[in-house]
Amino acid sequence: MKIIVDGMGGDNAPVEIVKGAIDALKEYNIDLIIVGKRHIINEELKKYDYPVDRVEVLDAEDIITNDDDPALAIRRKKNSSIVVGMKALSNGKGDGFVSAGSTGALLAGGQLIVKRIEGIDRAALTSVYPTSMGLSLLVDAGANTDSKPEYLQQFALMGSIYMEKVMGVTKPRVGLANIGTEEGKGNELAKTSYDLMKNLDINFIGNIEGRTMPLGVADVIVADGFVGNMILKVTEGVAISLFKELKEVFMTNSKTKIGALLLKSNLKFLKGKLDYTEYGGAPLLGTKKPIVKAHGSSNAYAYKNAINQALKFIEKDVIKTIEENINLNRQILN
Amino acid sequence: MKIIVDGMGGDNAPVEIVKGAIDALKEYNIDLIIVGKRHIINEELKKYDYPVDRVEVLDAEDIITNDDDPALAIRRKKNSSIVVGMKALSNGKGDGFVSAGSTGALLAGGQLIVKRIEGIDRAALTSVYPTSMGLSLLVDAGANTDSKPEYLQQFALMGSIYMEKVMGVTKPRVGLANIGTEEGKGNELAKTSYDLMKNLDINFIGNIEGRTMPLGVADVIVADGFVGNMILKVTEGVAISLFKELKEVFMTNSKTKIGALLLKSNLKFLKGKLDYTEYGGAPLLGTKKPIVKAHGSSNAYAYKNAINQALKFIEKDVIKTIEENINLNRQILN
Repeated sequence: MKIIVDGMGGDNAPVEIVKGAIDALKEYNIDLIIVGKRHIINEELKKYDYPVDRVEVLDAEDIITNDDDPALAIRRKKNSSIVVGMKALSNGKGDGFVSAGSTGALLAGGQLIVKRIEGIDRAALTSVYPTSMGLSLLVDAGANTDSKPEYLQQFALMGSIYMEKVMGVTKPRVGLANIGTEEGKGNELAKTSYDLMKNLDINFIGNIEGRTMPLGVADVIVADGFVGNMILKVTEGVAISLFKELKEVFMTNSKTKIGALLLKSNLKFLKGKLDYTEYGGAPLLGTKKPIVKAHGSSNAYAYKNAINQALKFIEKDVIKTIEENINLNRQILN
Repeated sequence: MKIIVDGMGGDNAPVEIVKGAIDALKEYNIDLIIVGKRHIINEELKKYDYPVDRVEVLDAEDIITNDDDPALAIRRKKNSSIVVGMKALSNGKGDGFVSAGSTGALLAGGQLIVKRIEGIDRAALTSVYPTSMGLSLLVDAGANTDSKPEYLQQFALMGSIYMEKVMGVTKPRVGLANIGTEEGKGNELAKTSYDLMKNLDINFIGNIEGRTMPLGVADVIVADGFVGNMILKVTEGVAISLFKELKEVFMTNSKTKIGALLLKSNLKFLKGKLDYTEYGGAPLLGTKKPIVKAHGSSNAYAYKNAINQALKFIEKDVIKTIEENINLNRQILN
């Protein structure tokens, strides 16, 4: 197994990226292609003891930043780590691509360079969604802001397959993010998407509301990218604001301070559980080859986890399964 | 001031409704019209000591439930408390209408019976949104699930006026709920709405994200009804799930149990602060006369608060101000 690593993407590149990649090499026994400014990457690699024949450095002198227009940057910055890495992926030089770089550029590159699976209209960004019961997968987490019902149908299918294959959930419960649970509720997009999702050969549990999502009522939450991103950010915002208010409660007086002290370690655990950035990478779904987006603030540990996610993505043949199911469902639907 | 009260709407009708209304009469020195099954309302009224000449009972033998199709129910259940009450409001028999009944029916009745302000395309449902800084107003909280940019522009204007006049916030900061802060972010609706809101004579602070909403970055949060309702329900869901997890943390062992005990009263206060159902009623914005929706589970205290909200709505001439501003903005925009 050979993973292509974007050595330049993310807040902590290249230091933490190269460290996480070498850690992954050792722990998972994989080969690496690290893409980035050759002298910088080589300088980083010198810090570690590793089998040199298992690491190739692919030179890319340019970097796409979050300030670049994603589609433009993919077209123009031909020598950026994302473009060079994705071309290597597309040409079969590696089995998967992991980057902590610009999400927009990864999506644009995924669609323009790696290309979409036949029958998939749009690639989706996923995100882990932490719940009281464990984890859900949110698709789309922000890639497609004006989705058509067919996109949501495809997100449902891909999300179900990923959750089953990679996360090991049997018959994942797939829910449509909506503002009422009954069939026929919601906006036009939700109503039509519901009808399309109903016809899929998945465990579709119908509409789910924001009130119950954090309780873990669904394994896969399907939403338009605008709504999905809103769900994610509001969840994050409410958690941040509540912990802030909790902190104020703790600091009220000496009594509360003692109370807080007694709870400290247990609360820390809860906070960690809620931090969705701790769960390694988020796969892009719908491209012909596995692409995993690591969080921009990934440290070596998080980056290693993202590589692990890419490995499972590859090993479990997620893309082949999506291809087969898309064909199957097309036959059923046509 | 005379308030028309829907005596039959809500989970705790008529007992808590009539009690809350009589409490309001005494506290705010107002007149009442209570609409509902006459013998039931009269039976309830017997419990209290009040100036009988200040309370009129208007008979309405029918009830619109949450299971009724709102628009159909308004057309067919002519003798329901909502239809009778709204007709009384429309005919000038009272100055405002308060109901804990079906939100959908109130919206349908508001538009069909009370009618919209000239220049307003859709009536919006509002909701109080509790933040670390106090309260924001969310418009639209779920009435219009496929909004046009013009609707959002009008929601922004009406929300700003309400927040300034009724909640006493000077130059309320009005933000557009979006998935990025920069201009040009979001879906087509958000992009066009941004342009329209920019031209209003309000304190438009641009796009706001779900991550910062709970921190109180805006006084008025403008959103399409689907998105607004999702924001509200996700917020509620995350808070519920976090308090559930906190409870589990507290019960872990004897150390944490003592810690929880020391924090108990302060945490209770925090929980109350987050419960948006405690903040009385939510006004409908855009109708020709003041309509306030009390929460379905309102007790007498919450219902009295909802009546108080209606009183401020009337006293502060919110509707007249909306009418004037809509005309003004139309002149600017045309």
